Amino acid sequence: MAEQFLAPPPSGEEELDVARKARNMHALITKFQHTFTAIEKCSKPVIAAVHNACIGGGVDMITACDIRYCTTDAYFQVKEVDLGLAADVGTLQRLPRVIGNASLVNELVFTARKMEAAEAHQVGLVSRVYPDKAQMMAGALAVAKQIASKSPVAVQGSKVHLVYSRDHSVEEGLRYMACWNMCMLQSEDLMKSAMSLMAKEKEPPKFSNL
Amino acid sequence: MAEQFLAPPPSGEEELDVARKARNMHALITKFQHTFTAIEKCSKPVIAAVHNACIGGGVDMITACDIRYCTTDAYFQVKEVDLGLAADVGTLQRLPRVIGNASLVNELVFTARKMEAAEAHQVGLVSRVYPDKAQMMAGALAVAKQIASKSPVAVQGSKVHLVYSRDHSVEEGLRYMACWNMCMLQSEDLMKSAMSLMAKEKEPPKFSNL
Amino acid sequence: MAEQFLAPPPSGEEELDVARKARNMHALITKFQHTFTAIEKCSKPVIAAVHNACIGGGVDMITACDIRYCTTDAYFQVKEVDLGLAADVGTLQRLPRVIGNASLVNELVFTARKMEAAEAHQVGLVSRVYPDKAQMMAGALAVAKQIASKSPVAVQGSKVHLVYSRDHSVEEGLRYMACWNMCMLQSEDLMKSAMSLMAKEKEPPKFSNL
Amino acid sequence: MAEQFLAPPPSGEEELDVARKARNMHALITKFQHTFTAIEKCSKPVIAAVHNACIGGGVDMITACDIRYCTTDAYFQVKEVDLGLAADVGTLQRLPRVIGNASLVNELVFTARKMEAAEAHQVGLVSRVYPDKAQMMAGALAVAKQIASKSPVAVQGSKVHLVYSRDHSVEEGLRYMACWNMCMLQSEDLMKSAMSLMAKEKEPPKFSNL
Amino acid sequence: MAEQFLAPPPSGEEELDVARKARNMHALITKFQHTFTAIEKCSKPVIAAVHNACIGGGVDMITACDIRYCTTDAYFQVKEVDLGLAADVGTLQRLPRVIGNASLVNELVFTARKMEAAEAHQVGLVSRVYPDKAQMMAGALAVAKQIASKSPVAVQGSKVHLVYSRDHSVEEGLRYMACWNMCMLQSEDLMKSAMSLMAKEKEPPKFSNL
Amino acid sequence: MAEQFLAPPPSGEEELDVARKARNMHALITKFQHTFTAIEKCSKPVIAAVHNACIGGGVDMITACDIRYCTTDAYFQVKEVDLGLAADVGTLQRLPRVIGNASLVNELVFTARKMEAAEAHQVGLVSRVYPDKAQMMAGALAVAKQIASKSPVAVQGSKVHLVYSRDHSVEEGLRYMACWNMCMLQSEDLMKSAMSLMAKEKEPPKFSNL
Repeated sequence: MAEQFLAPPPSGEEELDVARKARNMHALITKFQHTFTAIEKCSKPVIAAVHNACIGGGVDMITACDIRYCTTDAYFQVKEVDLGLAADVGTLQRLPRVIGNASLVNELVFTARKMEAAEAHQVGLVSRVYPDKAQMMAGALAVAKQIASKSPVAVQGSKVHLVYSRDHSVEEGLRYMACWNMCMLQSEDLMKSAMSLMAKEKEPPKFSNL
Repeated sequence: MAEQFLAPPPSGEEELDVARKARNMHALITKFQHTFTAIEKCSKPVIAAVHNACIGGGVDMITACDIRYCTTDAYFQVKEVDLGLAADVGTLQRLPRVIGNASLVNELVFTARKMEAAEAHQVGLVSRVYPDKAQMMAGALAVAKQIASKSPVAVQGSKVHLVYSRDHSVEEGLRYMACWNMCMLQSEDLMKSAMSLMAKEKEPPKFSNL
Repeated sequence: MAEQFLAPPPSGEEELDVARKARNMHALITKFQHTFTAIEKCSKPVIAAVHNACIGGGVDMITACDIRYCTTDAYFQVKEVDLGLAADVGTLQRLPRVIGNASLVNELVFTARKMEAAEAHQVGLVSRVYPDKAQMMAGALAVAKQIASKSPVAVQGSKVHLVYSRDHSVEEGLRYMACWNMCMLQSEDLMKSAMSLMAKEKEPPKFSNL
Repeated sequence: MAEQFLAPPPSGEEELDVARKARNMHALITKFQHTFTAIEKCSKPVIAAVHNACIGGGVDMITACDIRYCTTDAYFQVKEVDLGLAADVGTLQRLPRVIGNASLVNELVFTARKMEAAEAHQVGLVSRVYPDKAQMMAGALAVAKQIASKSPVAVQGSKVHLVYSRDHSVEEGLRYMACWNMCMLQSEDLMKSAMSLMAKEKEPPKFSNL
Repeated sequence: MAEQFLAPPPSGEEELDVARKARNMHALITKFQHTFTAIEKCSKPVIAAVHNACIGGGVDMITACDIRYCTTDAYFQVKEVDLGLAADVGTLQRLPRVIGNASLVNELVFTARKMEAAEAHQVGLVSRVYPDKAQMMAGALAVAKQIASKSPVAVQGSKVHLVYSRDHSVEEGLRYMACWNMCMLQSEDLMKSAMSLMAKEKEPPKFSNL
Repeated sequence: MAEQFLAPPPSGEEELDVARKARNMHALITKFQHTFTAIEKCSKPVIAAVHNACIGGGVDMITACDIRYCTTDAYFQVKEVDLGLAADVGTLQRLPRVIGNASLVNELVFTARKMEAAEAHQVGLVSRVYPDKAQMMAGALAVAKQIASKSPVAVQGSKVHLVYSRDHSVEEGLRYMACWNMCMLQSEDLMKSAMSLMAKEKEPPKFSNL
């Protein structure tokens, strides 16, 4: 995305040398990367609901989300090679971990071809396809509401470890998990949940904010 | 799972402080984690054959197995968030590596919804679905018998490196492999296998125990 | 593959001890590994087009390629366990990253069974299946030509980071990317691409060799 | 340091449960950690000049600096165990990499004993000891001035890689370096430096800001 | 050390092939490695007090300890090359992290020469040298007693993170630390320590066992 | 070092753009890095014997060696910042692992000041200082001869693991070691060494080449 901000120096100013331009560029790329990484650092799960075009920065964004849904008219395009650059704010890092099909990921990146909703669903980029935007929004909000009704200790803890585990070995992931839950299992949410389950309550218990 | 063992102190004993409870909890979680990791440390391949409900600790267990089969009536549920905790003995670490569909994994974890056998097969949690338990057991045992007939140097070595490779870069995995096989290629199993193949024997050769 | 080179010492020479044989074997395995790794170190994307049998070393080879296509009559077989050894030049390291279905990968490795083109397509080992070799070659060459028409700064940079990201955390991958593009975004290819897009040219711009 | 901020809840408010206190604590510790890590993220080298007491958070701070000097009356104390906690904002992570003497580091941490300037110099915590504060400040500023006169491309690039290398293998460090310098060697600073050296100029060349 | 257990097979039994001997050897080496690693997994700090010879397995052992003292008559010898093998239970992994002098470590390993107490002290293998065994034992016990008087939450937590940090980047170490202390800072030991310090008590407070 | 090869394009040729220059530069830096890394990949230990000036690339080279000796008239200088670049072929990666004194390493790099033999010895860059070149060469050759007399299985195996351990956690290092020695402990060198030790032979046994 940073390529959108490449511009000649204001007239009257000296042209920067390659190294100095590079430092500015580095700062800019890093800033954009943080913008998308913020989604996976968000303590709450984030659902991407895509209709119509999802191109370039759009793919960077949705791969940083936790859950992806789309409409039947949606399509996805890793467009950067057509702009003369390698995608630099997340797609190349996250897409291969989101889809278990390396040949397809590479083909999408190198050719910049469009992928329609059906194929995106079949290969797992999205986990649900809806007929139209209204139904998708209703569906996504229903899932969001369902998740929001659950223990924040459980949900937010799960997100922390799903993201951590993606980037660490199973052994490292388990170790970090044990450290986390030695504390979190002392939460009141466990007792509330247990009592609710035993009482076979229809409604989930009320949990304090986290 | 450790949450099942949270209990008040025996009467008459002083309540432990948060730190001391945490150390006990840490020891307990670690112990349970080892229980499941033992499956992937087992030198022989382990096949999980699932019928009906596979919930919570069940999912932790089968994701530590090497091969997963199930019956058409099987369903899978990452139940922990409904108990007020993040799953802590393996599901969050292993499920994303078992299935190449991050959106679905996250949805299953955050919503605790059931996933039926057909979907489990489609996304690759299981690699075969059988009509009923009897046929599944026959099928799983046939595969087990087939694997058992092969060179233990080959089969057990393959398991070591499949597990190692999951947690290391390709380059690290190749290096460990070269170190392993500089020894294992000196095994008698290679000559036995080669002679058997050349003689076009129906039966696999007999290999010594490893 | 190294097993094909195990041979008794020339007559008259002393038998090497286990350690000395091992060092020779280590050198040989490493050399073969490099042969396949060369494919992923190649700066340009490599497309594997498979017809008929792809066995043993063939699987090692295609998993080191970037894109995989095959014909309907193709089949794939991780054959090494039948030769009495664990595959040691790439399959165990790369196949699990190419396919998002760990149970199937393990089953293929432990049983050495054949996998037909349809299953290979369904699980993502190949991303396209063609009716015959002629059509596959035409298809593969068309894709290759399409990729070759694009900016080499963009295409080759993308390959570098797709391979790097496979073996590093998302954070590490993003950091390396920022370092790469602080330089590469200063390329003339961006301006050429932008002008071509704005002019809505039919033909892609001409890029200098890289 | 975070322990200084542990306080009972404002009267009238409900006591938070262990999990919710933990999340607050986590945010606080992370914030303090960032405060010190900011020093090593600073693009310019940072010199710590210590006189008299350097205790607890002081040690956290100076180990995040690039160069450490002190006066003969300085002493250093990893005080945290005497406060009932493990140091959590950097000392345990950085001190063992700053001093090549693990037995001493451990002894200092477990006993919280004071280490005088002479021992700090002998084991390498500081690289110079001055008789008094005035001479130390003069010495530190002279070094700072000397560094400031040099190419910022060279100095700041060196810092980036010294910090990166501490946390990565030699191979990873070299790879990141090659990526960095493929750009930075195109800087005008090289030509300026070369010409200055060839002309045997007394004064270093003037470099543009970075 | 495993070399001490290499023995011919009991008469009447068939000689194992290279692969099968290797698996036995692997199990044996791993077992010995665990024996020494147990020292660094011990929750309490371990002090090694060395007098006279510390050879081979002795060096493996002391490098797994937290603090090392010796007498003036002590000497250290990495003896394994003289037995025809590379040390395999810890010295090659831990000694370079214990001493910040790679040239010396390598020289000691390759030549198997003795290193006397004075040199061991100068390079930091030991952090104190005592005139004789009695004084060393008194000194070591005094330090042990001093450590034992302190908060176990603080001391044991410090050990966990000193060992963890040795094997992880600073960033990873800080992250694990934040996870640990979000819990441990809720310990009663902080309040006890704070009150004791404010009251300027001579004796440290009494802490519960951990 | 790559800076020595920066040159304008031959007259008549078009100036390359930043990206294309960068790829050439990357290839060049990588090639030089391999030149020095070859020393640590050499199966036999390498001793650096330094007299007089060791500057820039000289420091890159000796930090890739296993053992470092020098004469009293030797001095060391990390010169690159004075040339307008960050050192890019090994010093920034290896020097901090060779010397356990981060403050000094940073000071040397940022200031480009000379370090004399005495200081180099005190901080551990070299492990022996000789009065003159003749005595140094005699000393270095005596050590080399001593090492050459020992089992190559032991010596070369030790080097492999000292280098591996520098770049991996203790746990990873131990695991690789166990894999290595499950093979190497089957060498004839152990028996030869044991018999020689038991017979109290003056001369070391004769070992076959490795």
